[in-house]
Amino acid sequence: MKVDALGTPALLIDADRLEYNIAEMAKALPGDRLRPHVKAHKCTELANLQARAGHPGFTCATIRECEGMAAAGLGSDLLLANEIVDARRLGALVAGRTRVTLAVDSPRTIEAAAAGGVREVVIDVNVGLPRCGCAPEEAGSLAELARSSGLSVRGVMGYEGHVVGLEDPAERAERCQASMELLLAAHAEVGGDLVSAGGTGTYACNTWATEIQAGSYALMDVAYGRLGLPFRQALFVEATVVSSCAQWSVADAGLKAFGMDHGNPEAEGANVWYCSDEHVTFDPPRNVGDRIRLAPGHIDPTMAYHERVHLVSGDNVLETWPIDLRGW
Amino acid sequence: MKVDALGTPALLIDADRLEYNIAEMAKALPGDRLRPHVKAHKCTELANLQARAGHPGFTCATIRECEGMAAAGLGSDLLLANEIVDARRLGALVAGRTRVTLAVDSPRTIEAAAAGGVREVVIDVNVGLPRCGCAPEEAGSLAELARSSGLSVRGVMGYEGHVVGLEDPAERAERCQASMELLLAAHAEVGGDLVSAGGTGTYACNTWATEIQAGSYALMDVAYGRLGLPFRQALFVEATVVSSCAQWSVADAGLKAFGMDHGNPEAEGANVWYCSDEHVTFDPPRNVGDRIRLAPGHIDPTMAYHERVHLVSGDNVLETWPIDLRGW
Repeated sequence: MKVDALGTPALLIDADRLEYNIAEMAKALPGDRLRPHVKAHKCTELANLQARAGHPGFTCATIRECEGMAAAGLGSDLLLANEIVDARRLGALVAGRTRVTLAVDSPRTIEAAAAGGVREVVIDVNVGLPRCGCAPEEAGSLAELARSSGLSVRGVMGYEGHVVGLEDPAERAERCQASMELLLAAHAEVGGDLVSAGGTGTYACNTWATEIQAGSYALMDVAYGRLGLPFRQALFVEATVVSSCAQWSVADAGLKAFGMDHGNPEAEGANVWYCSDEHVTFDPPRNVGDRIRLAPGHIDPTMAYHERVHLVSGDNVLETWPIDLRGW
Repeated sequence: MKVDALGTPALLIDADRLEYNIAEMAKALPGDRLRPHVKAHKCTELANLQARAGHPGFTCATIRECEGMAAAGLGSDLLLANEIVDARRLGALVAGRTRVTLAVDSPRTIEAAAAGGVREVVIDVNVGLPRCGCAPEEAGSLAELARSSGLSVRGVMGYEGHVVGLEDPAERAERCQASMELLLAAHAEVGGDLVSAGGTGTYACNTWATEIQAGSYALMDVAYGRLGLPFRQALFVEATVVSSCAQWSVADAGLKAFGMDHGNPEAEGANVWYCSDEHVTFDPPRNVGDRIRLAPGHIDPTMAYHERVHLVSGDNVLETWPIDLRGW
């Protein structure tokens, strides 16, 4: 099938760039040094390529991502890097021989893990991002509570999400170190093999974590594209120009085709004015019927809008993959 | 079923407020004075309530919305208020006795309508929003071209999307009038019964259009909530607090649960700091396990993220509806 026979908006992955990105990361962080985060793509076919590149474990953000990965045969070592207050669905996975390790950061989430049938946890430590994670000085006593509740504590995690997007590499490295010093102090109290952290923006400078939770590197987006990382934009939304005048054109991909929290999508040779529900307005104008490829501002919430993604090479559609980890 | 037994994030509609909003609009714009826009909710069960309130026709933004409405038995008078360059899927609907009228604004889209088997069109006129629609002075010749291509021209449409969100009611009314003067001038050249325009922000002041394409009024959002309209916020995302510290709490609904182009969701008694993929951080802190209800900034791209929505009254889930018009 040819790309121009696809209805639009169509989510496309450039096959060569995806292959390049996966290989480049596997060279930098081979095997279990990388625990790819599936929240970035929500697609088990893509996760399969990451597994074949040598990464045995995966990071998930939702219970449904864990369930979908297990169903796809990719459940040998899943980390749900998120807190939950009802762990029964995860317990069912564990009972079915999927290895799922759950992040906990409070007595309540430890209680939920034990009650739900989860067996392994990491202590989630706040390393500076105002989000989940206990204070570093609480990590040791939470680990003790977890162990006394019958849970095995595999180590710590702490996501430096306030650092991964900093544009100055020196500042990024310096603040990453400050975050990881907090995490290592907590790890000294907690014990266990895992120090899980990091993302695409800090995969190279975060040399303290035992494993990096990067996800965006495989497909990239406009926001990460600004950081000068050695990964190439591999994800695009292809749209059709449906209306044109002397000043602008309008193509058929809008707010329901792009995650918008990092701003507008971008396209080579075009200035994007704004998006509305099913439209993007841009200049200079093109002919009605022309196609335009746009790079999303933020990959994760973009993938979550689409039912499927097409792997393409030049004009050809090689494969079509369901985005099967959507929802909750 | 009780609301607190639902997994989160859960999309909720307050049944009483929905009923109120639909009744209030049906009083103001009875029967075919309103052509409800289904892009706002993408849910045929909700469209059914609008049909029962007396509105015979609907506005759609995508081919899939037309197909889904036809499959649900709601295809007696659909307007696809959008340009397309391949009308074959619509032609198949028309051949199957669904009445679909298509917006056209160029020779190319007229050609596509005729070639695809569409029989009825409206001329889409640009009334000030930099998006689709021909220049008002081109409308007459495009209508002639459409008729000579064998199409029936039902009239004009022109969406004053640059006006519907203006916070000052006097400015909104004044600029609505200026837009509608352009549309009426085009209509004088085009002919036909329909002058289709408007949205939730201009439903009351737009007295020139023969029918108003409002959609958001049924469920509302934070952005429209600022306009002092007589409609009540009926849509919420319920989330569970999964992590808490002395300064903030984190609940499990984020960038994949909310359309973000109009900014953060809001919650009574809480200050939302920011959203990340699966989280919203806010203060003042609450207990882990507590529920919080958030009103989305923008309804349309919020609905498009969710597979289903729960109709609730107090603590009870009355019905669960699929959001069946998602995708393209």
